[in-house]
Amino acid sequence: MADIYLALLHYPVYDKGYKVVTTSITNMDIHDIARSARTYGVKRFFVVTPVRTLRALAEKILDHWQHGYGSVYNETRKDALALVALTDDLDRTIQAIQQETGERPHLVATSARSGGSRATFAQMRRKVEEAGSPLLFVLGTGWGLTEEVLERADDILEPIKGAGAYNHLSVRSAAAILLDRLRGAR
Amino acid sequence: MADIYLALLHYPVYDKGYKVVTTSITNMDIHDIARSARTYGVKRFFVVTPVRTLRALAEKILDHWQHGYGSVYNETRKDALALVALTDDLDRTIQAIQQETGERPHLVATSARSGGSRATFAQMRRKVEEAGSPLLFVLGTGWGLTEEVLERADDILEPIKGAGAYNHLSVRSAAAILLDRLRGAR
Repeated sequence: MADIYLALLHYPVYDKGYKVVTTSITNMDIHDIARSARTYGVKRFFVVTPVRTLRALAEKILDHWQHGYGSVYNETRKDALALVALTDDLDRTIQAIQQETGERPHLVATSARSGGSRATFAQMRRKVEEAGSPLLFVLGTGWGLTEEVLERADDILEPIKGAGAYNHLSVRSAAAILLDRLRGAR
Repeated sequence: MADIYLALLHYPVYDKGYKVVTTSITNMDIHDIARSARTYGVKRFFVVTPVRTLRALAEKILDHWQHGYGSVYNETRKDALALVALTDDLDRTIQAIQQETGERPHLVATSARSGGSRATFAQMRRKVEEAGSPLLFVLGTGWGLTEEVLERADDILEPIKGAGAYNHLSVRSAAAILLDRLRGAR
């Protein structure tokens, strides 16, 4: 079984008008995605932002749940948030995984937009089941990862298809479904 | 294909110490679950609370996205939130579906706890694929639906299993995974 890593990018991502922006860190994103990550055996969940003050804020929240009152109040939350790491950008995230595993991770971008060449969930699930290189799945906040990030990925995963054309899941829901499709009990 | 309805119960649910409580309505629950509901073709998403002032607050938020500035700012959010209805309790939720469809819905409770007799996701997916009665899936806030709710359900769905024993998904993530397992493209 290959190791799975997740990264939530706050830059570079699109806004509603397809301008490249930096989004704010959202407390609920960290909690929800960390809990899903813990549920599905993710090795580490990187919250990625170039904004130093936002990383400091996130650090403070994490500290509350790791060492403060939160750690006593809710142990399951502590377990989930122990997976979270804060990084500046995608390159340093890749470096962190390389340091942890000795291998460069296979970079998989996610997108709600369909396009030319997309890896299917079935293909990606098989890749996870093989004992290959670690896999880093990158999720975008805002209106999604920029073309620049998609272009440097080894694979772009197909969009999550529901029952129709509507494709506006929250990133929290998309992360949950992604992990269930990759590693949920069948 | 059977019609799917969702209900998010704020009472009666357990708190951390298994006391029966009423939880507060959370803005993020409404948005995230409505977006997942729209993605997977759910007919209506009921937000259920006996607290009149919280229903009024939710009504105000919904109005912002249905008719206020939100409806112009973000049309996809408007589409999702158009699915939301506010009800007092489970009985009135069932009545509303009966009025809408002329049929009493098949009541399916969800729980993160395993127990005696649980319907599997595969069984429930088949039930959805048949053109039978409407199905009402009930999700609990807090620490989950009380025994009383589980007992009156026609079926209790098996817990979502990830890669280990940890079973503390957010209700937003659980709703997303539930819908994907029932109706996601395969």
